[in-house]
Amino acid sequence: MNPRAAARERGFQGRLVLVTGGLGFLGLNLVPALLDLGARVRLVNRSAEPLALSWLERVTAGRPVELIRGDIADPQGVHRWLDGAAVVVNLAGESGATKSLQQAQEDMQVNIAGHLNLLDALRPLPAPPRVVFPSSRLVYGVTGQTAVAESHPPQPTSLYGLHKLTVEHYYRIYRQSFGVPFVVLRVTNPYGPYQLPQRRHYGIINRFIMTAIEGGTITLFGGGHQLRDYVHVADVTEAIVCACTDERAEGQVLNVGSGASHSLRSIAEQIVESAGTGRIETVPWPEDHRKVETGDFFCDPRHIEQLLGWRARIELTAGLRDTIARYRELLR
Amino acid sequence: MNPRAAARERGFQGRLVLVTGGLGFLGLNLVPALLDLGARVRLVNRSAEPLALSWLERVTAGRPVELIRGDIADPQGVHRWLDGAAVVVNLAGESGATKSLQQAQEDMQVNIAGHLNLLDALRPLPAPPRVVFPSSRLVYGVTGQTAVAESHPPQPTSLYGLHKLTVEHYYRIYRQSFGVPFVVLRVTNPYGPYQLPQRRHYGIINRFIMTAIEGGTITLFGGGHQLRDYVHVADVTEAIVCACTDERAEGQVLNVGSGASHSLRSIAEQIVESAGTGRIETVPWPEDHRKVETGDFFCDPRHIEQLLGWRARIELTAGLRDTIARYRELLR
Repeated sequence: MNPRAAARERGFQGRLVLVTGGLGFLGLNLVPALLDLGARVRLVNRSAEPLALSWLERVTAGRPVELIRGDIADPQGVHRWLDGAAVVVNLAGESGATKSLQQAQEDMQVNIAGHLNLLDALRPLPAPPRVVFPSSRLVYGVTGQTAVAESHPPQPTSLYGLHKLTVEHYYRIYRQSFGVPFVVLRVTNPYGPYQLPQRRHYGIINRFIMTAIEGGTITLFGGGHQLRDYVHVADVTEAIVCACTDERAEGQVLNVGSGASHSLRSIAEQIVESAGTGRIETVPWPEDHRKVETGDFFCDPRHIEQLLGWRARIELTAGLRDTIARYRELLR
Repeated sequence: MNPRAAARERGFQGRLVLVTGGLGFLGLNLVPALLDLGARVRLVNRSAEPLALSWLERVTAGRPVELIRGDIADPQGVHRWLDGAAVVVNLAGESGATKSLQQAQEDMQVNIAGHLNLLDALRPLPAPPRVVFPSSRLVYGVTGQTAVAESHPPQPTSLYGLHKLTVEHYYRIYRQSFGVPFVVLRVTNPYGPYQLPQRRHYGIINRFIMTAIEGGTITLFGGGHQLRDYVHVADVTEAIVCACTDERAEGQVLNVGSGASHSLRSIAEQIVESAGTGRIETVPWPEDHRKVETGDFFCDPRHIEQLLGWRARIELTAGLRDTIARYRELLR
């Protein structure tokens, strides 16, 4: 084992990690990685969909995980679930920019109120555990064709992005006022296995892949020329793992992306080509999507690389091929 | 009547202005100004404290005002109250930076959820009325000894400041996505008549004045050397009136302050001197105040002056003297 991997195992061995929203896309990828590192895992999730539970069984492969059905907006629950936790990976929330404008109040309650409740439970603790919070590139809003660093002034176009930004500020304020340690990871566009098919309103590559392997039609809005920064979920998992224990990460806001940009059209073409099924159509922008559309985006990932040595390692073509194969198996 | 005043009257004559939170400090100053301009006023307020009601009677001086007890978080209510409104001045909310960290969840519900509810009621309207929203200099956080322009990156230290910032973003997003017109006014430290004595946790000059005229002790934290930008509420009222109808204000975020800075100590000394009663003591910073303290602050007010011709006109010494006299009468 190399020294870095050994240091990492020391950080997790026998320690309890609370993963909120752990039955979601990021959680189902993270949990086995934590178990591999020797951590104990307590997983809290609002819903318990049968497919998610069967995927959890698959990824844990017989290793024990404490699974609790609950909502981080529940004050008594959060107090109990934090008991003994050395780290919290706070994945709870509802994704989706377009949806957030359709259900504004609900997005606010789910994506703000619960997080504040968690922080209020952390603040009286004498030595609160570190919280790793995956935020989103959607906090930036419209940025154009320049690599976006963490210092870029945030101007989200969607309530989803805004509520992520508000929670980022909560962490900054609760660290400053109450010493709650945190790491914010601004994830670009993640893709990879274990996204529930019923959650297709976000995660565009995964949606395209599911559509292609069903032999369906991938719909591109306005030609699909918008550029995005795609990152494989295994790379995101690696970033979360670094953020959990690396001292240098504490108190930081870090972009997690590849730094490369690809048009949605080129991605769709690669998917259809690689899958050997599905077709592509182009339609004009629907109004509700146009409202929250940010145009081109790719991040500047140098901060996290310089600070933690993390960078995205999975090359896009290989990542797409792997993801297609995984969903063919997972959704059989 | 000068041409500007005449234009202003045309903007209000016979038109209905909905003032939410209208029984508060800003509202009780604004309502008579709106009536003077010929507007009809519909006032909605969560509470109905006897002193506020008697002050409303005093400022309206027999002129009719539609007074409704209600909460902007009430979806049905907001729909009804918006009926016929040409402008909304949205003063609802709970002030106080220190208090916001003591009651985090409550601050979020009062200072975010209600505003989102109001915006959700505005968004389906074919021609939504303009909303004027007084935000706060507390969105900026720690800025130091430079005049702070609107472009300064906001980093609030308190949940109160953060929730104001979140609501500012709501307005930006709802304008962009649904065409709801708005004006955000970032008010520095307002003072003047008609702040309820039981609301003394904010509005430091008013608190000092009330203490001095009661013959009590004004407490300065850490010597009272922090600089602040104080603005008389009559000037703020004038800015709100401009923001209600001036076309150039729409979609803008504007500082509303004097641009001058004074130490809290010098203010306290002037108050005790001018009142002829009260005394001053200095104590170390209490922990909960230190957490949200921003240090020195004064704003750069050039944007609103260049755009709308507004600037603070009431000189501080005269403003303090007047405010002392008014509270002597109001709290008799």
